Amino acid sequence: MLPRKNRDLKKITVEYPMTKNSVVLLLFLLTAHWVQARADDPLPSWREGATKSAILQFVQRVTAENGPDFVPVEKRIATFDNDGTLWSEQPIYFQLAFAVDRVKALAGKHPEWKDQQPFKAALEGDLEKLFELGEKGLLQLVMTTHAGMTTEEFEEIVIDWTASAQHPRFKRRYTQCVYQPMLELLAYLRANGFKTWIVSGGGIEFMRPWAEQVYGIPPEQVIGSSIKSRFEMRDGTPVLVRLAELDFIDDKAGKPVGIHKFIGRRPIAAFGNSDGDLQMLQWTAAGKGAWFCLLVHHTDAKREWAYDRNSHIGRLDRALDEAQQRGWTIADMKRDWKTIYPP
Amino acid sequence: MLPRKNRDLKKITVEYPMTKNSVVLLLFLLTAHWVQARADDPLPSWREGATKSAILQFVQRVTAENGPDFVPVEKRIATFDNDGTLWSEQPIYFQLAFAVDRVKALAGKHPEWKDQQPFKAALEGDLEKLFELGEKGLLQLVMTTHAGMTTEEFEEIVIDWTASAQHPRFKRRYTQCVYQPMLELLAYLRANGFKTWIVSGGGIEFMRPWAEQVYGIPPEQVIGSSIKSRFEMRDGTPVLVRLAELDFIDDKAGKPVGIHKFIGRRPIAAFGNSDGDLQMLQWTAAGKGAWFCLLVHHTDAKREWAYDRNSHIGRLDRALDEAQQRGWTIADMKRDWKTIYPP
Repeated sequence: MLPRKNRDLKKITVEYPMTKNSVVLLLFLLTAHWVQARADDPLPSWREGATKSAILQFVQRVTAENGPDFVPVEKRIATFDNDGTLWSEQPIYFQLAFAVDRVKALAGKHPEWKDQQPFKAALEGDLEKLFELGEKGLLQLVMTTHAGMTTEEFEEIVIDWTASAQHPRFKRRYTQCVYQPMLELLAYLRANGFKTWIVSGGGIEFMRPWAEQVYGIPPEQVIGSSIKSRFEMRDGTPVLVRLAELDFIDDKAGKPVGIHKFIGRRPIAAFGNSDGDLQMLQWTAAGKGAWFCLLVHHTDAKREWAYDRNSHIGRLDRALDEAQQRGWTIADMKRDWKTIYPP
Repeated sequence: MLPRKNRDLKKITVEYPMTKNSVVLLLFLLTAHWVQARADDPLPSWREGATKSAILQFVQRVTAENGPDFVPVEKRIATFDNDGTLWSEQPIYFQLAFAVDRVKALAGKHPEWKDQQPFKAALEGDLEKLFELGEKGLLQLVMTTHAGMTTEEFEEIVIDWTASAQHPRFKRRYTQCVYQPMLELLAYLRANGFKTWIVSGGGIEFMRPWAEQVYGIPPEQVIGSSIKSRFEMRDGTPVLVRLAELDFIDDKAGKPVGIHKFIGRRPIAAFGNSDGDLQMLQWTAAGKGAWFCLLVHHTDAKREWAYDRNSHIGRLDRALDEAQQRGWTIADMKRDWKTIYPP
């Protein structure tokens, strides 16, 4: 059946004799057709080409009810890395920017931080030094800023920060530095019966407060790294207190472990951008039925950033080789994306 | 609008004159009405009374769009304990029966088990002795039978067991020893937009393989105790290997922790049957909006079992006191349930 708009236009043609008006009408029809094509396009921010076609074809294959690759709705699981896949991760992971901002906000109560690493580096905005302090320093920064409060208190802190903090380069909120093409992809998959999940090395409770509004992904479909929490009664009211103790690192080989722990079934589609996503893609590609693996390749220094094999953040090296060997799809940001961020 | 059946019957009345036939028709209509009433009842296995009314009223309140207690669909989270709440847990937790059966199945390869506890007790079916060995013995039994294989291998083992093992008293499969009234309750909540979750002290991977078929609860909505797993490449194929190392105990104060970890929002309804569920119910009852807490009280020794304050399995003591003090709903199995198991 024709879309309604086109059917209406067909009626109009009957009323017009073949005069000059026909030419006007033809132009009108062509324009209408173009508008229609855009409206029918579930991925308008993706340029036509092999990447977009691969996505569309995969979804058509697994949803074609009598086709050989049909996947029932309950098994349509799609997992997405967050940093560098759904939103930017430069010049530093946004959660690290949050931790630095928290150190600044709390510094008044901690005069000793002025002379104490890693706090000194954070307060001075000395990111070089911060990275030099390595994992131990970063972990200390995260634990100090992410633990010690109740889960509800932390949620409020995150909501306040995302509502006010600005990205240093783009001068917009961090939650507006999400990729428009990926938002469309999430919506397109959901419209085709997929459950979309975040599987991120980032903190699970740092993402949950805003993921539903920004990505349409509810908290129960967010998987991430976590610290432990403890149930406590405070004046007769139960609270969960966040402890300065690692619970789970949802990165690299931890991603399939996290997927199995939280979802309990294998994704049929996985989306990442770095070596931290390699095992998630391997796990997905080892499924028995149809599967789809995609890597976002940051190739656009002008509109976003260009980095891969030699980057400290979001290094894409082994996974890039494996993608090329195994035929995983690569979304080349510069080539494949018409726009980067939402307007 | 009248249900279709009644409308059809109304048409028939027009064709009949007021004769003796009318009496027959009246009886027929009354019967039809009774059938209709049953069909309209979402909880036919629950006897009319305060418990059933409390459930129905709560659901009506939170789904009434302009009512003061309306809860939007995405926040309609209902959590259910499993052992003793959705299926029986006597004479021993079904997962322990599974472990004992596994020891028997594997004993051929372990001749030393004949003289080694806790295996000796398991092989001899000496449950008294098994309980006497305490938590350490049970843990050893679980680790030996639940770890060392891949996640896919374990899933198959569980599926095979549930397809063949019989409950010692009821001579039916364990997955048929589920409570018909609770199956109806799960379906009723889902029909009203709730997401139903299992939050059990039992093993997450012991429940997931059959929970979808038996309860209509998909694997990603099953929370339970877990052991760790490790991602490994075996001949180029990624596998997850189950390790003999505890990851998380989803019981007592662990239940709200598990709920927060997996769901990330507070349930508005929680269902349990023992002190192991107390903190889950406290956490639920501390929500800001409408909430509903229910305890299944095992009071029916004839059709199932009667136990509470002094039982080793499913002890219901503190939670029973708190339910009475706080006005949580108690489902008295003998009084409230017309049937226990599905036919």
